[in-house]
Amino acid sequence: MNNPKAAIIMGSDSDYKTVSPAMKMLNYFNVEFEVHVMSAHRTPDDAAKFAGEAEENGFDVIIAAAGKAAHLPGVLAAFTILPVIGLPIKSSTLDGLDSLLSIVQMPKGIPVATVALDGADNAAILAVQIMAGKYEDLKLKLHAFKNKMAREVKEKDIEMQHKVYDEYNCKGE
Amino acid sequence: MNNPKAAIIMGSDSDYKTVSPAMKMLNYFNVEFEVHVMSAHRTPDDAAKFAGEAEENGFDVIIAAAGKAAHLPGVLAAFTILPVIGLPIKSSTLDGLDSLLSIVQMPKGIPVATVALDGADNAAILAVQIMAGKYEDLKLKLHAFKNKMAREVKEKDIEMQHKVYDEYNCKGE
Amino acid sequence: MNNPKAAIIMGSDSDYKTVSPAMKMLNYFNVEFEVHVMSAHRTPDDAAKFAGEAEENGFDVIIAAAGKAAHLPGVLAAFTILPVIGLPIKSSTLDGLDSLLSIVQMPKGIPVATVALDGADNAAILAVQIMAGKYEDLKLKLHAFKNKMAREVKEKDIEMQHKVYDEYNCKGE
Amino acid sequence: MNNPKAAIIMGSDSDYKTVSPAMKMLNYFNVEFEVHVMSAHRTPDDAAKFAGEAEENGFDVIIAAAGKAAHLPGVLAAFTILPVIGLPIKSSTLDGLDSLLSIVQMPKGIPVATVALDGADNAAILAVQIMAGKYEDLKLKLHAFKNKMAREVKEKDIEMQHKVYDEYNCKGE
Amino acid sequence: MNNPKAAIIMGSDSDYKTVSPAMKMLNYFNVEFEVHVMSAHRTPDDAAKFAGEAEENGFDVIIAAAGKAAHLPGVLAAFTILPVIGLPIKSSTLDGLDSLLSIVQMPKGIPVATVALDGADNAAILAVQIMAGKYEDLKLKLHAFKNKMAREVKEKDIEMQHKVYDEYNCKGE
Amino acid sequence: MNNPKAAIIMGSDSDYKTVSPAMKMLNYFNVEFEVHVMSAHRTPDDAAKFAGEAEENGFDVIIAAAGKAAHLPGVLAAFTILPVIGLPIKSSTLDGLDSLLSIVQMPKGIPVATVALDGADNAAILAVQIMAGKYEDLKLKLHAFKNKMAREVKEKDIEMQHKVYDEYNCKGE
Amino acid sequence: MNNPKAAIIMGSDSDYKTVSPAMKMLNYFNVEFEVHVMSAHRTPDDAAKFAGEAEENGFDVIIAAAGKAAHLPGVLAAFTILPVIGLPIKSSTLDGLDSLLSIVQMPKGIPVATVALDGADNAAILAVQIMAGKYEDLKLKLHAFKNKMAREVKEKDIEMQHKVYDEYNCKGE
Amino acid sequence: MNNPKAAIIMGSDSDYKTVSPAMKMLNYFNVEFEVHVMSAHRTPDDAAKFAGEAEENGFDVIIAAAGKAAHLPGVLAAFTILPVIGLPIKSSTLDGLDSLLSIVQMPKGIPVATVALDGADNAAILAVQIMAGKYEDLKLKLHAFKNKMAREVKEKDIEMQHKVYDEYNCKGE
Repeated sequence: MNNPKAAIIMGSDSDYKTVSPAMKMLNYFNVEFEVHVMSAHRTPDDAAKFAGEAEENGFDVIIAAAGKAAHLPGVLAAFTILPVIGLPIKSSTLDGLDSLLSIVQMPKGIPVATVALDGADNAAILAVQIMAGKYEDLKLKLHAFKNKMAREVKEKDIEMQHKVYDEYNCKGE
Repeated sequence: MNNPKAAIIMGSDSDYKTVSPAMKMLNYFNVEFEVHVMSAHRTPDDAAKFAGEAEENGFDVIIAAAGKAAHLPGVLAAFTILPVIGLPIKSSTLDGLDSLLSIVQMPKGIPVATVALDGADNAAILAVQIMAGKYEDLKLKLHAFKNKMAREVKEKDIEMQHKVYDEYNCKGE
Repeated sequence: MNNPKAAIIMGSDSDYKTVSPAMKMLNYFNVEFEVHVMSAHRTPDDAAKFAGEAEENGFDVIIAAAGKAAHLPGVLAAFTILPVIGLPIKSSTLDGLDSLLSIVQMPKGIPVATVALDGADNAAILAVQIMAGKYEDLKLKLHAFKNKMAREVKEKDIEMQHKVYDEYNCKGE
Repeated sequence: MNNPKAAIIMGSDSDYKTVSPAMKMLNYFNVEFEVHVMSAHRTPDDAAKFAGEAEENGFDVIIAAAGKAAHLPGVLAAFTILPVIGLPIKSSTLDGLDSLLSIVQMPKGIPVATVALDGADNAAILAVQIMAGKYEDLKLKLHAFKNKMAREVKEKDIEMQHKVYDEYNCKGE
Repeated sequence: MNNPKAAIIMGSDSDYKTVSPAMKMLNYFNVEFEVHVMSAHRTPDDAAKFAGEAEENGFDVIIAAAGKAAHLPGVLAAFTILPVIGLPIKSSTLDGLDSLLSIVQMPKGIPVATVALDGADNAAILAVQIMAGKYEDLKLKLHAFKNKMAREVKEKDIEMQHKVYDEYNCKGE
Repeated sequence: MNNPKAAIIMGSDSDYKTVSPAMKMLNYFNVEFEVHVMSAHRTPDDAAKFAGEAEENGFDVIIAAAGKAAHLPGVLAAFTILPVIGLPIKSSTLDGLDSLLSIVQMPKGIPVATVALDGADNAAILAVQIMAGKYEDLKLKLHAFKNKMAREVKEKDIEMQHKVYDEYNCKGE
Repeated sequence: MNNPKAAIIMGSDSDYKTVSPAMKMLNYFNVEFEVHVMSAHRTPDDAAKFAGEAEENGFDVIIAAAGKAAHLPGVLAAFTILPVIGLPIKSSTLDGLDSLLSIVQMPKGIPVATVALDGADNAAILAVQIMAGKYEDLKLKLHAFKNKMAREVKEKDIEMQHKVYDEYNCKGE
Repeated sequence: MNNPKAAIIMGSDSDYKTVSPAMKMLNYFNVEFEVHVMSAHRTPDDAAKFAGEAEENGFDVIIAAAGKAAHLPGVLAAFTILPVIGLPIKSSTLDGLDSLLSIVQMPKGIPVATVALDGADNAAILAVQIMAGKYEDLKLKLHAFKNKMAREVKEKDIEMQHKVYDEYNCKGE
């Protein structure tokens, strides 16, 4: 059995900064990934070709990030049966509502698994959750990650107790 | 010189009723047109092929109607240099905001000429205005149409005077 | 290796009609599924227990449908590492915007794979796409389904040609 | 009879600055309070435990602050019969609409008393108003606070008269 | 000690049908209540007088229902230190967004405890939760009510198992 | 001194039913009015001419009703110094938000006095309030109207007491 | 006959900067005005008293500016038959939508003449247009102002020609 | 045959910076253009005259940019049969939604070809696409431009491969 492999496609290289937490997260889970700049509108053939061959090229899941009239995730999904995760990017107008609706409101037959606006971390975690169905060791890592997140919140809780106690002389538990 | 020819592409045959005023309007202007059901997501290759060959097949303009995450106009525009008119269709949720934003908020480089939600008449009139640049006789027809619209409003104005006069005994001009 | 199994959880039995296309679709793909009514707010312990044990109970994916302040998908996701698909249901006010945002805008760490408002079909198709990573035969079925969808659109296209030809005496392909 | 006690729970320590006016306000009314960082999604068991034991631990009211898909107030409300005040926090996208709707649109049976976006002062004042039902001396303080607010506005009014008079030589009363 | 008493004020008698579940709910909890039609704009003095005297007239909490530019809850809150619960009513335009924002976005100093659009049940339950601070026996009733709600969901869950089993021959637990 | 006279201009005769309460209200106040159907887009010259001559034709105020991209009030305001009252009409998409924003968000220099969506009554009452500055006897009528509205609410309040008393055996004051 | 006099009431002195263009504009038209800070919620009696006596105190029109759940204009309008101009102020969340809807969506009977968000200039111009009905000399000033605005745009047009000519060597007329 | 010529009309010179990419783009395509500042509200006669004479003055298309209640494109379209491209400008409130809806939601009969908010590039490209119907050499330039855009994305894709490879040691193709 081969290794898990994800693709991250962004519609414009200007989305790099917003998308990079997805790369860090996949790296954290030790999942191989490719990153591409492809446009549903400016290089539609490349996007179609990539998506159409993604399955045979060993990809398990595709993360597609785009802003405004964000067609990229839906266009990729049209050419593959792999799960496509849509990552809506907030642009300079309309506060992200346009990208969110353009990605999530897919018509019957071609779903896109949409995550929060600018939610690159979650796009990657969802990708790992999906791949964990096939690659069982990722399940352990996900449980560990969930525990780590819980520990961090618990630590923050304790820090907050101290901080508030110092400031208001009130007692946390 | 050949004759003006428009294409009307709708993402689903369920949009027929909302789109048909565009057909009636093109018919009124005596403009030849083809109508197709093509989906950016379910038949992306057909859509790409149609748009890619539209110029050499003698089309002057493409009207594309779609609802929800309405990618069809943008996807067609990706494959042609012909003007693409986007006609957003209101669906059962979000009151049309999703289709409008998915169509109008196109990224730099690939415009879609967007008209009002469910505005099939205007999509066709805009198509005729565009074609009139090349086919001069359409200009005369457009002027006549504009005059006819004005006359109709003037007639409605007079009818309204009478109606209101009867009801409130007040005087219109 | 065991068989693919999905869970469909809805926040209220009043969502049954909107959710049932997901059941039909899973049935179509011959995927076993359980359906539950559980509430993030009225039976939070049951929801937590179900999600917490879903992995060991052999579920591969959870579809969670909810309306208004739709917390159910996020609450289930909090207790499992399985992919959770969020299906926002339009209720009687705000045209679905509340359920969509309550489901999709999940904070960092706990993604919910959100599909379109009232998009029960797509929730199920996404579930099958996810399970196909592990259960390879589902891939064939997904390819067949995609082809079937394309064929249906092509048939609708031809029907539309005839319909329009009859009505406007204009020529389709 | 014991003393009034409130809990302030925030979903993330990054909300501290926005939430702290609630602490200052409770302090002003001399009401004891605990502050916690707990997450409906990352530490759901802690949140459930806290809410489930809040009544017997002597809390009178819970203020819960959260942003984006803000499930925390609703999740706490699921586990207690104490009044839960929801404080929606504006995050970096959608201008706060997501947190507001995720908190206020609670389904039948489990209300959350929602205040304005980033309205930490009002969350605390509402908490005091609620506790004043049981702890009568808080009523006097609330009346005094209301009078103080009125006085401050009256002073601002007079300052404004002077300021405008100086600038426009116009007469205020 | 006197008995719990709530006021329900609605801005227009046309809201009666939407508001009446609040009356049924208070009745269920055996809480005395008065119902009034008062308008922040058409009978502002009556509204001010009622709110100003509500405390000495033995009311514990006020529920105020209004639509459109829904000023009634805020106007009542201006004249009392009692907790005011705002119940936004969806009217014929804007799908309820106007009433929701007009009620919840109160400025610093005068909170309104806002519940969901058309959420009359929850307005009453919140009122009971608030009054339970002072009237301890209401706590027992609230626990019983919470249990009853949970039981009902559990029953619905079992019914759903049967229904789905019959239809799809699939197994629920 | 001449008599008060108002104009009601609507962009389409299909708005008649929504606008007619304005006519009834002006009639109630015994104010003379003219009603016209004029379109900012189909008969722009007529609209410009009407507005440009309205002052010398003895009009005191113009009420302009329009839906969708509702330019009529702003276009009339461009050609007159008379106060123009904008009455946004809800159309079949976007729940009225388009007409409201198109009317109210006028740029610096040319205000339109906007009333609520479909608020024809208020458009007329505002017109009367404006005209009452010049025609003093309208002030008396406005005071009488305000008193009448208050009386009607008070009567509704009493009816509601009886209705609720009968149904819940609870006491209103 | 007395002189025209306007009132400008703002809900908070923090709105001063946004509101001050209204003062400058009234000053420009040489109209006397008073400015007050009054709150519909913190000094409701003062607001009611001011509005209730405004007519006999010689005011012709009231401009009321407020943000968030902006009740001030509606509350003032409840106590007077003078025209009340509502000036919605954008605050730190929701981009002004809350103040706009809270002001413009007034219920039947009590209109508020709403202008654009942060549109203090237009609030004052509308006030002058309203007062010009009674004070005829204001009409001349309004015509002069309209001409001045037109001249300024024409000058900007010529400047733009030059600027663009220099930059693109293209010809304006 | 004469040369292609476009007009760019902006409602205010403050829109210059946002609109200037349209000028650069027309310049790039070597299309002659005129730029004007004209206001639908402050210089309505100039706008009407310009649009009314645009056809005989040799213009092929008009680009009209405006913000807030953006009436300019619709007002120009009322006076010409030339295609009018509407360019909505985001202003300081409502994140551009007002200008977008005011431009795109045109009533039946008078279309405006709307592009994305602040999408000056696309306004110009659409203008060139429209003019290319008549001026065939523009078609070649549009094809070249489309190829150039594709090449640029492909180059960005390769750069991204390197960048990501360096950072994560992962392999793109």
